[in-house]
Amino acid sequence: MGSAAYTTSSRLLFRQLFEKDSSTYTYLLADTSHPDKPALLVDPVDKTVDRDISLVKELGLKLIYAINTHVHADHVTGSGLLKSKVPGVKSIISKASNAKADLFVEPGDKITFGDLFLEVRATPGHTVGCVTYVTGDGPNQPQPRMAFTGDTLLIRGCGRTDFQIFSLPKDTLIYPAHDYKGFSVSTVGEEMQYNPRLTKDEETFKNIMANLNLSYPKMIDIAVPANMVCGLQDVESKAL
Amino acid sequence: MGSAAYTTSSRLLFRQLFEKDSSTYTYLLADTSHPDKPALLVDPVDKTVDRDISLVKELGLKLIYAINTHVHADHVTGSGLLKSKVPGVKSIISKASNAKADLFVEPGDKITFGDLFLEVRATPGHTVGCVTYVTGDGPNQPQPRMAFTGDTLLIRGCGRTDFQIFSLPKDTLIYPAHDYKGFSVSTVGEEMQYNPRLTKDEETFKNIMANLNLSYPKMIDIAVPANMVCGLQDVESKAL
Repeated sequence: MGSAAYTTSSRLLFRQLFEKDSSTYTYLLADTSHPDKPALLVDPVDKTVDRDISLVKELGLKLIYAINTHVHADHVTGSGLLKSKVPGVKSIISKASNAKADLFVEPGDKITFGDLFLEVRATPGHTVGCVTYVTGDGPNQPQPRMAFTGDTLLIRGCGRTDFQIFSLPKDTLIYPAHDYKGFSVSTVGEEMQYNPRLTKDEETFKNIMANLNLSYPKMIDIAVPANMVCGLQDVESKAL
Repeated sequence: MGSAAYTTSSRLLFRQLFEKDSSTYTYLLADTSHPDKPALLVDPVDKTVDRDISLVKELGLKLIYAINTHVHADHVTGSGLLKSKVPGVKSIISKASNAKADLFVEPGDKITFGDLFLEVRATPGHTVGCVTYVTGDGPNQPQPRMAFTGDTLLIRGCGRTDFQIFSLPKDTLIYPAHDYKGFSVSTVGEEMQYNPRLTKDEETFKNIMANLNLSYPKMIDIAVPANMVCGLQDVESKAL
């Protein structure tokens, strides 16, 4: 269990933002030591785009990327709205997701903002195109590392995980796309030890997941088609 | 505007926890370099006491204090339940609050856990007994400092602030008791510049606050009497 109080980096500005209706976390990261102060948002939500743009402006940042961990089924992504409201922003999603975006990433790719970067790791399961974005390893990169796991690994839960995440150092900070119990962060070490699903063997895990009796996601019929095209299905009527 | 990504300290374990119904933040702090791993909770909520106890246990910490920033009107404190469920925990509140607790603090006092400590600053206004807890200044203490402001200073809002907070270094991290817009942290510098209420002159501020037309707090008649006695008005029937 790491004893660090969040990540140490003199360059990284980091903010965790919450959308209450879908319990979604959006993450703002920026390199404030770079003259442009380039910034990116991981998993922006359409409803909170104005809040996020306002914060970016107040902090003097230049938003360059709107990034999704996967095609969400529970909320509409803010990527499209961000692109329409902030000139120059490019949307990013994994190639494996088959969704629309300006840039497509594949496992091993780096997403650079200033002198910082995120690595792309394939963590399929929850959806076939799910990726986890992990802060870089190296001088000037945040320590411990931070993993933005989307719905693949939730705190003490999961969409469905993949060993790609558990191969990270134990003190890696886990930042999921959602939390329903009020947790905000965990570590790889904690989840390996206390995640009630992922500490089980494969057979037990399959049984747990098969018997969750989850209800049909209420936003799925709206969110998935919208999120395949940056959340922009009716942006003309909605945002402009 | 600080560029740090949260606080740097090799000793401090820090977790921000959320209670959705009242939009309340509870903060867990511990000195993990000390053999006992002593921990404290700032503004625990009765409903989430079991979650908090479970996390404390999983992280191998020893909970010693349950601390309130003030007598809350919007939720029932978890202090009493924590005391009944975790032997040895002591409740703390300001002497000026006139509420019941095991220990009473006054401005200038230090609350020590391991080799870390919180300083008590008087920040009355929202209630007469409101205090802000600020992490220590000195070697091994977290940098930048963190201020747990309760309802006195909210992110881009306030219960009612006091200059005691704005006299802290601009990169001091602001951790409020609530947030209704999904923000999780701010800095003294940001609030001095962008807080829509506190950037006004005294006359304008008074006018804004007098014309908020706030509805009668829904929990106030239950929460205030309960919180005067550690949230324990009917703990026998409720928790045991």
